[in-house]
Formats: sequence, C-alpha cells, structure tokens
Amino acid sequence: MSDAWNTAITSIRPNEVRVRGFDIADLMGKVSFGAAVYLILRGELASEPVGRLMDAIVVSSIDHGATPPSALSARTIASTGASLSASVAGGIMSINKHHGGAIEGCARHLAAIIEHCAQPDDDERLFQVAEEYLAELKQKGQRMPGFGHRIHTADPRTARLMELADEAGAVGPHVRAARAVARVFEHHAKPLPINVDGAIAAILADLGFDPAVMNGVFMIARVPGLVAHVSEEQSRMKPMRKIDPVNHTYDGPAPRKVPE
Amino acid sequence: MSDAWNTAITSIRPNEVRVRGFDIADLMGKVSFGAAVYLILRGELASEPVGRLMDAIVVSSIDHGATPPSALSARTIASTGASLSASVAGGIMSINKHHGGAIEGCARHLAAIIEHCAQPDDDERLFQVAEEYLAELKQKGQRMPGFGHRIHTADPRTARLMELADEAGAVGPHVRAARAVARVFEHHAKPLPINVDGAIAAILADLGFDPAVMNGVFMIARVPGLVAHVSEEQSRMKPMRKIDPVNHTYDGPAPRKVPE
Amino acid sequence: MSDAWNTAITSIRPNEVRVRGFDIADLMGKVSFGAAVYLILRGELASEPVGRLMDAIVVSSIDHGATPPSALSARTIASTGASLSASVAGGIMSINKHHGGAIEGCARHLAAIIEHCAQPDDDERLFQVAEEYLAELKQKGQRMPGFGHRIHTADPRTARLMELADEAGAVGPHVRAARAVARVFEHHAKPLPINVDGAIAAILADLGFDPAVMNGVFMIARVPGLVAHVSEEQSRMKPMRKIDPVNHTYDGPAPRKVPE
Amino acid sequence: MSDAWNTAITSIRPNEVRVRGFDIADLMGKVSFGAAVYLILRGELASEPVGRLMDAIVVSSIDHGATPPSALSARTIASTGASLSASVAGGIMSINKHHGGAIEGCARHLAAIIEHCAQPDDDERLFQVAEEYLAELKQKGQRMPGFGHRIHTADPRTARLMELADEAGAVGPHVRAARAVARVFEHHAKPLPINVDGAIAAILADLGFDPAVMNGVFMIARVPGLVAHVSEEQSRMKPMRKIDPVNHTYDGPAPRKVPE
Repeated sequence: MSDAWNTAITSIRPNEVRVRGFDIADLMGKVSFGAAVYLILRGELASEPVGRLMDAIVVSSIDHGATPPSALSARTIASTGASLSASVAGGIMSINKHHGGAIEGCARHLAAIIEHCAQPDDDERLFQVAEEYLAELKQKGQRMPGFGHRIHTADPRTARLMELADEAGAVGPHVRAARAVARVFEHHAKPLPINVDGAIAAILADLGFDPAVMNGVFMIARVPGLVAHVSEEQSRMKPMRKIDPVNHTYDGPAPRKVPE
Repeated sequence: MSDAWNTAITSIRPNEVRVRGFDIADLMGKVSFGAAVYLILRGELASEPVGRLMDAIVVSSIDHGATPPSALSARTIASTGASLSASVAGGIMSINKHHGGAIEGCARHLAAIIEHCAQPDDDERLFQVAEEYLAELKQKGQRMPGFGHRIHTADPRTARLMELADEAGAVGPHVRAARAVARVFEHHAKPLPINVDGAIAAILADLGFDPAVMNGVFMIARVPGLVAHVSEEQSRMKPMRKIDPVNHTYDGPAPRKVPE
Repeated sequence: MSDAWNTAITSIRPNEVRVRGFDIADLMGKVSFGAAVYLILRGELASEPVGRLMDAIVVSSIDHGATPPSALSARTIASTGASLSASVAGGIMSINKHHGGAIEGCARHLAAIIEHCAQPDDDERLFQVAEEYLAELKQKGQRMPGFGHRIHTADPRTARLMELADEAGAVGPHVRAARAVARVFEHHAKPLPINVDGAIAAILADLGFDPAVMNGVFMIARVPGLVAHVSEEQSRMKPMRKIDPVNHTYDGPAPRKVPE
Repeated sequence: MSDAWNTAITSIRPNEVRVRGFDIADLMGKVSFGAAVYLILRGELASEPVGRLMDAIVVSSIDHGATPPSALSARTIASTGASLSASVAGGIMSINKHHGGAIEGCARHLAAIIEHCAQPDDDERLFQVAEEYLAELKQKGQRMPGFGHRIHTADPRTARLMELADEAGAVGPHVRAARAVARVFEHHAKPLPINVDGAIAAILADLGFDPAVMNGVFMIARVPGLVAHVSEEQSRMKPMRKIDPVNHTYDGPAPRKVPE
C-alpha cells in the first residue's frame, strides 16, 4: 500500500475550500489574483500595496508577442490540431533557463552578492562587492542575467515596477544589490540597466520568495498570453502552416491609453 | 520561404510592449491581473467591477487540493526530478473535458438553451425551454455539466461569484438560463444547484467570452496551485514516492479570516 | 480509499517481467522491436514476416527532417534549455489530427468503405462503393487522408510496405479498399496514389490494429527522430535562436547504399 | 530575418527520404527498428548482431507495468479525456533523473572510472580504481546508479543483454568497468549486481553512444508501453477515477513461452 502523506496548501471540506487557511469564498472580491498568487506561494496574505505590486509583476510579463519560444512552440503544437491544454502546456515547457529563467538566475546572483557583503545596508560597500562579484563572473565566462536587453534599452516596465515596490515598502537588500550591479555596469561604461526580469527577481526576493518558484511566477504571468496565441492560431490560421519566427506583423488595435 | 503573417495580440517596439493597443507599463498598477486576462482574451479593457469579477473568477479556481488529476500528474512528474516547467505543463495537460471542461461544456449548453428560446428575457419561457432541453439531453444519455457537485452541495464560491456579477452588472441571458436550469432540477426534486464551474461558465458567457477559451481561463486560474504543488513535492517529499491519490491530509495553517 | 484495479499489459514479479504473458528476457534476442510493438499493442506474438513488416512500418516513419511541426516544437523547446524528455514530449504533443493523424483518419474511412460494401472480396464492387464514398466525402467538403503528397508523388516507401505486406500474407480488405480508392482517384484523373500514411493505415488495419492506437504507432516510430533533433539542437546550435521552419539545408553524410 | 541553418540527420527530396545518407525505402525490410535507432543516433549502420543487440536493449525496457511514474502520469492525464499524444507526452516527461535516468548516470560514472584507470585493460587494476571511486562516491553521500534493484535481485534481462553483447563483440571497457563495480560490491558483502539499467548503460557506452542521448534510448523503448497504458485506460476505465499507484493486479494472458 502507498503511504498517507501531508500537504500544507489547500484543505477541502464540504462547501469549503481553504488555501493556506483562508476560505476561497472569503478571498473572492477582496483580493486580486496577484495577491492570491502571493498567498499560495508565500503562505501569507499580502498587504493591499503588496497585492497591487504582485498584480503589476504578473501583468508586466503577460505577453511578449509571437517571437518568444513559448509562443512559437504553443502555436506550432496548436497548428497540428492539438487541444488548447496541450498547446498551452507546450508553451509552458519552453520556460526554462534561457527563456524566463533570467528571473531565478538573477535572484540567485543578487543573494550571493548580499551574502558576500558584510554591510549590505551600506550602498558603497554593496557597490564594491558587486564589482568584485561581476569581475569573478566574467572570469568564469558567465553573464549576469537580469540586466540589459536586446530590444528594450530603457524598459518603462522596470521603472514602473520599482515605483510600485517603493510604494509597497518592498524595497530591500536585493533591489539595492540590483541597483549596485547596474551602477557597476555604468561605471565600466556598459549600458546594462536592470531589465524587467531583473526587477522582478529583485522585488520577489525582497518579498521573501524562494528563487526556486520564481520561474513559476513567470509561468503564471505568461499563461494568458499563451491562451491568446493558441486561440488566435486555431481560429485565424490554417493548420500545419510554416510559422515564421520573425516575419510577422501586428495588426490589432491602434495604440490607446488606459483612462485615468 | 515561409509566409509573413499577422497577429492582433501584442506589438513590440523598443521600450514599448502593447497588448491589444495598451502599453503594459501603463496598465501596471492600474489594472489587476484579472482585468489584464480580460483584456488579452476579450480585446477590451474591463470596467473596474468587471476587473474585480475576473479576479474573483480566477481566485475561485486557484486550487482544489492534491486530489484533482492536474495536481496528481504535476506531482508525479515532479517526483521524477523534472523541471518546474515540465511538471506544471503536465498539470496543464490534464485540464480537458473531464477536468475543468465543465466550464466550456456548460457554456455551450446554456447558449443552446438561449438560442432555442424565442423570448430569452422571459424567465418563465426560459424555464420551459430549459425543461425540454434537459429532457432531450437525458434521452441522449448526456449530463448537464456545471450543476451539482460530489463534495460541495451549496458552494459559497458560486454565491459569491453571482453577487459580484450582479455588482458588475454582468448578469445576462446565460446566468438567467443557468438559474432556469437549476430551477428545473429543483422542480424535478433533484438537488443540483449551479456549481462553481457552472457559475463561471454563465458569467464568462455573459461577459462575451468565446466558449473555446473558457478552459483557458481555468488553466490561468490553476497554474499558481500547480506551481505550489510541484514546489511542495520537490522540497518536502522523497523522489519517486508512490503518490496516493486519496490518502493524504492537510497540515497547513489553521482556518483564518481575511481581515476587513 | 481508491479502488483496486486491473491491467492486462504487464505483470511484474521478482526477476520476471512478462508482457502479455511473455517473459521479456525470453523475447530479447528472439524478436525485433517491431514485433514487440505488435505484441504489446495487439496482445499476440507476431509471426516472423509480420514482425519484419512491423519493423518496416516504424522504420518508414522514423524521421522526416526538420520541417514537420513535431521536429520544430521539439527543437524550439530544446533551445530554451529544456531537458531531453520535455523536448521530446513537446514533439510528441504535436502528433495530432493534422500531423501523423492521417493514419487513423484513413483507417477509419477504409473501414467505413468496407462496411458499406456487401461483397468486400469483389474488387469491382469495392471500386463502386469507394467511388460513392469519395463523392459523399467531397460533398461534405472533406478530404480523404492517406492519398497523395505535397512532396512525394510516387513514394518508394509505400511500394516497399506493400511488398512486405504481401510477403507477410497481411494483405486484406483494408489494403484492397485503399487500392480501390487510388483507382477511383486515377479514374477521375486525379493523381493521388496511396501515400506512406495510407499504406500504414491499410496494413495496420488488416493486421487487426484498432484505429485508436494507430497514431501511437506513428509516435513510436518518430521518437528516435525527435531524440536526434533535440540532441543536435542542444549540441550544435546556440540557445534561443530563431528556428526558421523552411530555410535550412542537410549537411550530413552523402547518399549511400545499404550493403546487401 | 532568421538565419539559414544546417542539420545532419535527414535529407528530403521528392520521393526520397534519407537518414544519415541511407534511403529509408532501402532500409525497410533490411534493418530492424533497433538498427534504425542505432543509425539515427550514432550516424552509422549497425552490423547485424549489433542491430539485434539494439533491439534487445529497447525490448528489455518496453514496459514495467502500471507502477512507474511514466505510466501513472500518462494514465492520469488520459483519464481527463486528453488525446493519446498529450497522454503519452506526459509519460515521456516523467523520464528524468529518478526514472530512466540511471542509464545516463551509470554511463557517466563508468566513463569516469575508466578515465581514472591507467590500464583499463587490466581487470585487476580496474577493480582497484572502482573500489576507490565507490569509496569516494560514498563519502560524498552519492549512490552508484545501475546496480541492485528493489524487486529484481538477479534480473535475467541483464544476463541476456550481456550474452547478446558478447555475441555482437560489443563488450568493451565500460562493460568491464561495470563488472569491476559489481565485484567491488560483492567483495564488500553488498549484493548489488548490475541491473538492467546498468547493463544498458555499459553496453551503449561501449557501442559509442553519448551519455546525453541514453535517456532518449529509454524513451524510445518505453513509448509502446505508454501507448498501451493510455489505450487501456481510455478503453477500459472510467474517466477521472482515482488511480491507485500500488493496489492493482495483472489480469492478462497467463505465462507463455516464445516458440523456438
């Protein structure tokens, strides 16, 4: 016989589903999905501004067009007549070290920098430690993930995340270490600002997330985009077409502003 | 050469990612993730109460413990040393006709009832059409998905969703058809109230969602739960254990209330 | 508690693994993998020529270059740093109605033609029934899968399969129905000969395979190709490259002949 | 635009599909599937006895009943109404470090032992190096994969593989290192003979396979079993049943012998 076992996530009783102790019916209408993600992964209820920050984090990564491998593999699988769930799963399976993985990678490096620093509250000291750390990385032939971007050189999503993290009082040693790293790059005349992955990494780490689930936050964020790509592929395109990974254009609604 | 093609979801330009025309940096902090899900799948910005309703819908299905096949397959794959993304993907692949699929199935039946009804605004007429429709279904040996539940006989999540749909002014013919169906069951002495899947189906349909993406909303909702299960499996359990699908207990935080 | 259940595939005892009653250690060295596939899916031991035919069937579909969606999604997933198993799984998930599915589709149509035919042993009668059946299909706007090919107009793999089926005495009503269909197309001046999928469909059906597992035979056949593509992608290519679905060239060994 | 790229696996021309230079139509009927697996992964044609050995390797791992995680996750996914391909893919995704991975793990350790040994042709010297290597592994708290088995203490599949490897002249340093390891365990009064994974690892390594594709050979071997499990689940069982990982019984054909 297989052994009895325990789980600390969700309890089920007739007419009651409790996540980390909270009745889902009680959460509904009171907390956003971002706050519920925080609850199920961190185990505690988010404050209102932390909930808003969590929403902003997952909104920031909801989609990045048809070029990332997750969108391409989801569409490729969808084009064969696969179910929505298999197609979306194929997209999720593409979120690994080289796609989405910068978040976990960056968080681990920031944690290492903080650990190497005797006074992580001292920004000057943090700069020095970051400088040494990056030099060592370079010697090992490794890159620091979470900084710089091929397309986005001054990503407004990063600025917005940092703003919301400030408002939520969520800025801690990891965000400060990330800023130290960016200053080191600048000092060495390399324009590698914190990118959206780096900002998410630093903020999630300061919120107390384990790096091991950070890719999971990226997956949570990206599923709506994957559902939209699969749905568009299966409703708008012919089955089995050759999906060019570069040669495509946006033909959706024109730019518009969120009303205040 | 492969042909150029178009997509109407997301446009990418340096320092600008726009979903359905809205700059993601502009959305961040202003809209919740639920509202962003509405935007990417429906193409338009949700009003504030509709955004809250969308959050409630995805929060309602964030997890259902370790028993559903999605949690079990994600954990089974995780126990072999798979990556987080492969394990979560295995969970997603388990969301099909018999698991999560009640939402799409129910929405299609409700739409058929409305279509059969000359005056869908007349609740009495809707009741009669629903009665005939259910009799036909029964004759074909089919069940009406979205009504009744093995464990939850009076699911407070359903009541809460209906409340929030009312507040959002989102109640339309599908919710009214669902209520007609429940009254028919009651009339025939079958206690089969609208369950959480049925409520989501009716509300999403009244919000204008295509039934073909409704399972996608359930996938979006469930990914945080799957990440939590995989994370718990890999951090707390031994690899390759025999995972009993029934014989397990909740040992997490005691019941607690969301502060007002 | 979950219920006890039965399986008729494999029995496990200390130092003994029996598939459909045969000790695997007894099968090893005596039967080929093709014959073992026949055993596990059909439940009986293949004769020697049927075993050879089964090997030829799976060898015929072992790979079709880098263009099919299964190869492209496996490579796309592999390029993100996914494991070999997740990448190969992504390839498998691409084997559906529009890719590989012609085998099952064709077999079902051939079975329907035979069923419609009072004297399936009379080739003339089979021709007439096939003619009517194809006319009906056309009226419904459907195509007959398993006939004709975009690239391969006279596929020598088909000829070889038919030859081996003859040798194995495996030619029955389904192969004869497939030939009737090809004659109908010819008669109507459409050059749509039986393609490799159609030949596999007809032969597997005559061997007694259930159409529901025929796509499974195609999956079995294609996994070595998928492993090779993933392995090449991860050893020879840069991560996260844009994988053009058309613009690639073969640079492997020059044409060579199997020694007699 | 995406770049042109090269592949060395398969070339496609009208009416010609060549794998590693060989026309598939030419291979069909001449080589078994095992030999074709060798060709596509190793790049060369197998001799006849090596082809037979390859068939025996994949036959040896074709199934191991309903208990392994690959069978359980495939069945769990299948029970939700998933397609055959998604269900089989879920099984494949379960083949990782802790399930199937012993082959790659063992091959890497055997290679390390050979590398540490100045005279790998001298069985006495190999024994000493293996003894030191295992002592070091133990100190690091690691286990040597490929030796001993929970259920099968004297696995006849191992004996049969070794016999066929001898016949094929495929016994080289890795098989000899594996035998040295087994002798070391025996010498230290630990009954941990080479198991089927260890035998496959040693033989594939002596055949020149890269350890990175060895799990792929296991996946190739196991797909027919997965297809059989999914097919049985969907044809014989109720959807959404609780699949007990232990409490099941074999009710297939009684033990029978392969006729000579």
